[in-house]
Amino acid sequence: MSVHFRKLALIGIGLIGSSIALAAKRQGLVEVISIATRRQETLDEARALGLGDIYTLDAAEAVRGADLVILCAPVGTYADLAKTIAPALEPGAILSDVGSVKEHVVNVVGPHVPAGVHFIPGHPLAGTEHSGPSAGFAELFAGRWCVLTPVAGVPQEQTDRLVAFWKAMGSLVECMEPDHHDMVLAITSHIPHLVAYNIVGTVADLEANTKSEVIKFSASGFRDFTRIAASDPIMWRDVFLTNRDAVLEMLGRFNEDLSQLQRAVRNGDGPALEALFTRTRAIRRSIINAGQETAAADFGRPHENPPSPETTFVRDHGGGDDA
Amino acid sequence: MSVHFRKLALIGIGLIGSSIALAAKRQGLVEVISIATRRQETLDEARALGLGDIYTLDAAEAVRGADLVILCAPVGTYADLAKTIAPALEPGAILSDVGSVKEHVVNVVGPHVPAGVHFIPGHPLAGTEHSGPSAGFAELFAGRWCVLTPVAGVPQEQTDRLVAFWKAMGSLVECMEPDHHDMVLAITSHIPHLVAYNIVGTVADLEANTKSEVIKFSASGFRDFTRIAASDPIMWRDVFLTNRDAVLEMLGRFNEDLSQLQRAVRNGDGPALEALFTRTRAIRRSIINAGQETAAADFGRPHENPPSPETTFVRDHGGGDDA
Repeated sequence: MSVHFRKLALIGIGLIGSSIALAAKRQGLVEVISIATRRQETLDEARALGLGDIYTLDAAEAVRGADLVILCAPVGTYADLAKTIAPALEPGAILSDVGSVKEHVVNVVGPHVPAGVHFIPGHPLAGTEHSGPSAGFAELFAGRWCVLTPVAGVPQEQTDRLVAFWKAMGSLVECMEPDHHDMVLAITSHIPHLVAYNIVGTVADLEANTKSEVIKFSASGFRDFTRIAASDPIMWRDVFLTNRDAVLEMLGRFNEDLSQLQRAVRNGDGPALEALFTRTRAIRRSIINAGQETAAADFGRPHENPPSPETTFVRDHGGGDDA
Repeated sequence: MSVHFRKLALIGIGLIGSSIALAAKRQGLVEVISIATRRQETLDEARALGLGDIYTLDAAEAVRGADLVILCAPVGTYADLAKTIAPALEPGAILSDVGSVKEHVVNVVGPHVPAGVHFIPGHPLAGTEHSGPSAGFAELFAGRWCVLTPVAGVPQEQTDRLVAFWKAMGSLVECMEPDHHDMVLAITSHIPHLVAYNIVGTVADLEANTKSEVIKFSASGFRDFTRIAASDPIMWRDVFLTNRDAVLEMLGRFNEDLSQLQRAVRNGDGPALEALFTRTRAIRRSIINAGQETAAADFGRPHENPPSPETTFVRDHGGGDDA
């Protein structure tokens, strides 16, 4: 399918928005890109970088005449944004986004979407430790998954157009229900982040002497937990505010399992510990077989050679043993 | 202080033991290295690699005449080993080890140590994902901490000799009480591993459909958790069996904090979430300031350029934002 959009409107131009701008331009997927931001400073930066063709602080103005609109702003701003742009959305346009949660987005944006506009929320599973318009690069999505959650009633050919758009930027694409997306992301991303924040918080409360030594000898697993726990606080606050149900469901399971493990430690139950520690290896093998492993531990940071379906590593690197 | 030992006995020759052999030889710290293993196959491998000068299946034979003995076998074997070698230990010799827990080692080895032998347990915080005699390399300890926990009554000059030995192999060295070591390691290493094993175990129990998608979309934090959870099951079983008290103490604190965080998520308490997520950044800054950060997330895996006191990175890499 040939992918072509007349006018792409990007509302928000951080890492993801700027990467879409660069990738879409490079692949010749759009004629014109309009960029709207909330702050003048960000807009000036986007303009200086030459990311688009039209720059405005008026989101409604940006989406006028656009046949593809992608919300790339923090999820917490979506409700207001949707209200603002709704009257200016072109019939036949596709409206999408890149937020980390999907059911919440359907709930807060959906009611504002005019008839004739095709609402297809999305979430590219890609990112780096950098943010802002200057952080983007055209290869960000290469070999990374993008999940789309088209709402009921969207014609298949419209979904196909957006799928083709993401594939043309290098993504692997999968469609699923919003609540299913949220459950999968809760366990693959949100709970790991919550736990990392929690461990680092526990350390922050230690008595000064122990704390300084934890910091000194942090070359083991803990150091990597602190890296996760250095992620953007506002973004993560919004994730936990907007994916509460799935996070609490998965956290409940996590806690049940941890209680069992704690009991095994307390009882000195060697066979139970060994059984769990052995069983978890199977999951890792599956991930390697699924081609989602690379040599580098990255927590979403960029690889020097971005993974692609053709170039994923298959070697297994077990955890370090510096216990 | 000039470091020189006449005969170094290594009981066990896995990653750590073979790295000590290579580093000690290269730095000219020892005249003769004797190596004892439990299995003939491992001994043959060590011999083929030329790691030592004397090879034997008899640990007592290996330590005879040695002025430095280092236990490099799994901690679970220490009690039996100590009983076996005790009669053959030379008066004036230093007896040390490389186990991940220290109070347990003091408890099970200490009672067997003859008068006149200087018992100085140790723990080099270094490792890679590989194991066995062929995994060792002389640079493993460069810039990594080695913690020593000399027992009461060991003369300072004997501790100084062992400190000098580790420094000559490139280590940073610190002495502390065994129970303090165990508490620090519980939070920097053991709890992160326990939690990683736990999350991966939770996923293993998910219904098949969700599980396959978790595996598919595991490019976020979860993938790195599976890497930790692929560490050697036997070694980790022993860590949790032998550092039970410190692990349970730290796990208790972790659980209290997690309950509070869970409540904040349930109540949609944005300010509380943001406050924690912001506070944890200070810990990360401290780690970077302590020179223990490198660009690579490694969970103890080797860096292409091993960190050294002179070459540690100071750039901050925040967590990935592909929530």
